[in-house]
Amino acid sequence: MQVKGFSAAAVQAGIRHTGRYDLGLIFSKTPAVTAGVFTTNKVKAAPILLAMERLGSGLCQAVLVNSGNANACTGRAGMDAAVATAGLTAKELGIDPHLVQVASTGVIGQQLPMKPFTRAVPQLVADLSSDGFEQLAEAIMTTDLVPKIATATVLIDGVMVSLLGVAKGSGMIMPDMATMLCFVVSDARIDQAALDQAVKAGVAQSFNRITVDGDTSTNDMVLVMANGAADNTLISAGTPENAALFSAALDGIFRELALKIVADGEGATKLVTIRVAGARNEQEALQAARTIANSALVKTAFFGEDANWGRIIAALGRSDCTFDPRNVAMRFDDVMLVENGIFLGEEQEAAATDVLKQHAFTVTIDLGEGDAEAEMYTCDFSYDYVKINADYRS
Amino acid sequence: MQVKGFSAAAVQAGIRHTGRYDLGLIFSKTPAVTAGVFTTNKVKAAPILLAMERLGSGLCQAVLVNSGNANACTGRAGMDAAVATAGLTAKELGIDPHLVQVASTGVIGQQLPMKPFTRAVPQLVADLSSDGFEQLAEAIMTTDLVPKIATATVLIDGVMVSLLGVAKGSGMIMPDMATMLCFVVSDARIDQAALDQAVKAGVAQSFNRITVDGDTSTNDMVLVMANGAADNTLISAGTPENAALFSAALDGIFRELALKIVADGEGATKLVTIRVAGARNEQEALQAARTIANSALVKTAFFGEDANWGRIIAALGRSDCTFDPRNVAMRFDDVMLVENGIFLGEEQEAAATDVLKQHAFTVTIDLGEGDAEAEMYTCDFSYDYVKINADYRS
Repeated sequence: MQVKGFSAAAVQAGIRHTGRYDLGLIFSKTPAVTAGVFTTNKVKAAPILLAMERLGSGLCQAVLVNSGNANACTGRAGMDAAVATAGLTAKELGIDPHLVQVASTGVIGQQLPMKPFTRAVPQLVADLSSDGFEQLAEAIMTTDLVPKIATATVLIDGVMVSLLGVAKGSGMIMPDMATMLCFVVSDARIDQAALDQAVKAGVAQSFNRITVDGDTSTNDMVLVMANGAADNTLISAGTPENAALFSAALDGIFRELALKIVADGEGATKLVTIRVAGARNEQEALQAARTIANSALVKTAFFGEDANWGRIIAALGRSDCTFDPRNVAMRFDDVMLVENGIFLGEEQEAAATDVLKQHAFTVTIDLGEGDAEAEMYTCDFSYDYVKINADYRS
Repeated sequence: MQVKGFSAAAVQAGIRHTGRYDLGLIFSKTPAVTAGVFTTNKVKAAPILLAMERLGSGLCQAVLVNSGNANACTGRAGMDAAVATAGLTAKELGIDPHLVQVASTGVIGQQLPMKPFTRAVPQLVADLSSDGFEQLAEAIMTTDLVPKIATATVLIDGVMVSLLGVAKGSGMIMPDMATMLCFVVSDARIDQAALDQAVKAGVAQSFNRITVDGDTSTNDMVLVMANGAADNTLISAGTPENAALFSAALDGIFRELALKIVADGEGATKLVTIRVAGARNEQEALQAARTIANSALVKTAFFGEDANWGRIIAALGRSDCTFDPRNVAMRFDDVMLVENGIFLGEEQEAAATDVLKQHAFTVTIDLGEGDAEAEMYTCDFSYDYVKINADYRS
């Protein structure tokens, strides 16, 4: 799919490894209304600090993104490198450098080498194409196994508006306000306030609900750019129905990309939805779901296809959620395994084990305390997670 | 070592598997002054609930402990089983059932089978011996690879007092107020208030500072029994110097057992001390150390012998600790790797990698904010952790 007025490209710049796409560019013909959310980690990479500053204008026209080096914990030199690579790109595109954002992902603590950028950026600009997003999605991969793209269209007062998003995972994933890298472009005409609201609400229900390993990155960034090329009626607080339509389309993209990140979590073989229902309030439900979704014991049991509900209850018990163990119910998809805190027996366990053999399933825990519920999306914890992360820098 | 007036024994009761010690008994000739701490998990196993109730008397004469079944999440039937096994033991010993504590470790959610107990308890009582603690330490093992025993002696006003402790790990370990199972016996004469204070202070600095996988068990229990058989001057708040001597001996045992638990953590190949210094207060230092000690990315890097300080900084950044990334210093044992938030280069990294090749080492992070510090003890995260926990119930 193409999005009016947007183009993208990727090149093999050799930033860390050779022979793979590692530098990408997104470009909008005109400055795009842009909203973003960023990591809440106190240690923020240089590109995050720069992006937070530059997003003050609410506008962005180009995003330069590299893998192989996170440009995090690199001090003043790292910030200089971020500004310099943005400047290089702006010069080549002939636009204001303040309209260029940079994003980085990869190893923390190494200075960003400038040479690959000076060599590659001219080629990158020359290669810009409205079909370039697939290569871009490849260029931002680190330990990801598959590129992640999602698209949507929505009719705004009879005018077709398109959205296209790309994202990367796949370790150091438990976004607390944002996720790893995600870029969405749209030709929608929308004002900054409406876009900002749609982004923040969407992220809260998608990227903030996933976990691979409970670790929050220094480089998490979601940027959504809307350039108005579709020429629809302006979406704003004054057109709540259209704003809702746009939000729904954006939510769909966020959710699809978030689930793709979990499914491609480092070493993951299972995509598991942890649903906590019957809680006193949504916050408690979410906190409980998050604790279960991050438990190494629960996640290794999923890898072993073991319906080990005891570990799930134990994780629930160390969360800050209010409940009485004697009222808890648990099911794996539709198979009830625990009722009133008591195991229902071998036959039910055999049926639950069959559920676990699937690639994707849902574990529902009902606390019997109230009507609130929340979901988290997680993956299993496999040998390959350990292998990938014991070997990552070598 | 023997402790006056105490005996122990273990038998192969066949509770879950045959051919291994899985049921043990500790006995004191006279009722012992006893203090304990228990899991803070909201889901507490039946033996925990029973122990908390029975410890109200401050006295205990016998502890029956089994592995293979945690008697957790077993409802009313589980509590009945705990009371029944205690009653069985009391009858065989000819003592008041309220002076018997039971403890369980193993799989959660299975009803405790009574038959192995009715068969084995008479033999267990017959086998009681002052040399029986080594077998007892074996009987409480689950995925532990080695039994864990520590001993100490201390002179109280010229009288030799002995302490002997046993403990088991090795998964679901991040005690928040207590640990897995730990039993310490002493022939000290000490009043309950002084013992209680020594236990709580000691646990806070030992078992509450270790983590294997960040999961808190439903069965954590530390019991310390002192029967007065050494006939020393009574240790109490009125003899602060003697209380300090006893506390120091107990702290040593707690610390030794806690480190043995980490070193024998599921799949562990490294014993790592995470020391956060230069913090504003001890609470922040501990919180930061705990976040780092639990990070799956940090722990897999330790397994890979990769001095991946970026992951440590990233984990620090998602903790609730106050710091400025530009002031952080980090060293591996004596090798400085990061100063003022900046990596010191390849040569230092090579030296740090040599430190990581050792079985045990310390990572020190200095925040440059104040004078407070705290330590956590953790292990690495290996293939075997995943293997053990994917296969545990099969």
